[in-house]
Amino acid sequence: MIEQLAKAVQEKGTSIVVGLDPQLQFIPESLKKAAIEDRGESLFAVSDSFLRFNLAIIDAVCDLVPAVKLQIAMYERFGTPGIEAYRVTAKYAKEKGLVVIGDVKRNDIGVSAEGYADSHLGTVKFGHTILSALETDMCTVNPYLGSDGIEPFLKVCREKNKGIFVLVKTSNPSSGEFQDLKLASGEMLCERVAAKVSEWGSTVMHGDWSDVGAVVGATYPEFGRRMRELMPRTWILVPGYGAQGGKGADLVPFFDKDGLGAIVNSSRGIIAAWKQEEYKKYGEEHFEEASRAAVQAMREDIAKALDDAAASRVH
Amino acid sequence: MIEQLAKAVQEKGTSIVVGLDPQLQFIPESLKKAAIEDRGESLFAVSDSFLRFNLAIIDAVCDLVPAVKLQIAMYERFGTPGIEAYRVTAKYAKEKGLVVIGDVKRNDIGVSAEGYADSHLGTVKFGHTILSALETDMCTVNPYLGSDGIEPFLKVCREKNKGIFVLVKTSNPSSGEFQDLKLASGEMLCERVAAKVSEWGSTVMHGDWSDVGAVVGATYPEFGRRMRELMPRTWILVPGYGAQGGKGADLVPFFDKDGLGAIVNSSRGIIAAWKQEEYKKYGEEHFEEASRAAVQAMREDIAKALDDAAASRVH
Repeated sequence: MIEQLAKAVQEKGTSIVVGLDPQLQFIPESLKKAAIEDRGESLFAVSDSFLRFNLAIIDAVCDLVPAVKLQIAMYERFGTPGIEAYRVTAKYAKEKGLVVIGDVKRNDIGVSAEGYADSHLGTVKFGHTILSALETDMCTVNPYLGSDGIEPFLKVCREKNKGIFVLVKTSNPSSGEFQDLKLASGEMLCERVAAKVSEWGSTVMHGDWSDVGAVVGATYPEFGRRMRELMPRTWILVPGYGAQGGKGADLVPFFDKDGLGAIVNSSRGIIAAWKQEEYKKYGEEHFEEASRAAVQAMREDIAKALDDAAASRVH
Repeated sequence: MIEQLAKAVQEKGTSIVVGLDPQLQFIPESLKKAAIEDRGESLFAVSDSFLRFNLAIIDAVCDLVPAVKLQIAMYERFGTPGIEAYRVTAKYAKEKGLVVIGDVKRNDIGVSAEGYADSHLGTVKFGHTILSALETDMCTVNPYLGSDGIEPFLKVCREKNKGIFVLVKTSNPSSGEFQDLKLASGEMLCERVAAKVSEWGSTVMHGDWSDVGAVVGATYPEFGRRMRELMPRTWILVPGYGAQGGKGADLVPFFDKDGLGAIVNSSRGIIAAWKQEEYKKYGEEHFEEASRAAVQAMREDIAKALDDAAASRVH
């Protein structure tokens, strides 16, 4: 799967991932109103309005970006109808040629980890029939349980050509409470996790890159270079750009010298662009065009940062 | 919520939690056949057969145990129809007077953590309507992201009288890869997590106990006593009894001197009892009676271990 992601990044000429993480206040009133007229003030109406919103944004940005990431918590909040909107959005994005990342941060052991891996990356068999549950191309996984929690995902990665991103250093202010703890060995915990990610990844290589990626927040650029060293064959999924405070220049350390090896997520900065001063001119009736304009601005910000970095390496 | 759990443990006279973690091979053929006749070999048929199975077991054991735990991975494996079986099972168990624990191990930050907390412990508002998503009484949470990932759950615990169990030391063989790492301070990582659990818990106290519990595996009894010291006000959810190798005598260190402060989960040892040599006489047509007999055997095993421990304290 990682080859497909790398190819998509090269073809689209950018590493932007659009975070399809809908919240009710991001959805134009007209969409919500139509859904409520049809379904009442129910979870089904939320699901319908999320779907209309997501599909319009996918149509508007799919030629510009290599991938989308769906934060399942925003859907799970609205029960099974919400999760159904997640499933259909993922399927639609895939049909539009996008790499689809399920941001699910699942973690468990044994048969439970197999259950999650089957749900999010694989298939299930019932009688003679093969069924698909919440399938995406790649998903995020929490490492706290150790290898037992990762191996079932690696098995599905091998069998079905899929990938995972393991949480290493997250973008939030309190990520250091455990992740930055200094070990007796001198490393930080997140460095030890990074080393394990590299080890797990060595078993699912495709050319230069591994199907096991890592999550490292844009809000910690000082970790970027160290993480690249510890995980040289690992694609890094970088959250925290935009609304969480990360800027184009902060992203440079996450990339290799060819501008590969990292993808950068932005969620509300893109999907709720129509609510920002800068893009207000589009109005709520053209929310998807505001999202497209925000993607273009983010493309330029990242490209300029990478160009500046390349120029400073030459000099 | 923790008072309600403590009361249920005292009333039922046992700390057993029945793990309703269905797998297709645990479900009697007759149940699967009926579901397939009705729905074909679909995710909906899986969901129907899980529901018939779970509800029969709940009916058979609800007078004997204080709580059930639902491992959501086993349901999520079968997509939104599977998750619907999770939701309905949880609701039914609650109607039968059981404390319902969602074993979801969710973890995220900011609005995403709020989404999970709303889904599993709270409610959501759409227009003027309050809606419930996948509500349980308590749920499990992964601590790797630090306080940012816990606070949104604590907020809902306070507002809605709910509880959480934070993963501290899990029952699997590789749990030590990160959880047992020795820190520069001399502690192990899981001890640091335990100290944070105690700190988080101090903000949601009810009498002697906190609404923030901890998960510590029965397979590591040597950690039991240390964990009790570090988290004196914390209920410990202990997985790993039975199929994973934990025995009654291993459980003693997890309890306080009154036999409180811990609940012990068993899943396949109870729900798939009908497939074990010992309970084969019940046959697949009386699978729920086999489960009831397995609960009674487990009650005796734990009660004997606690009695033996109390007697040895007296002498």
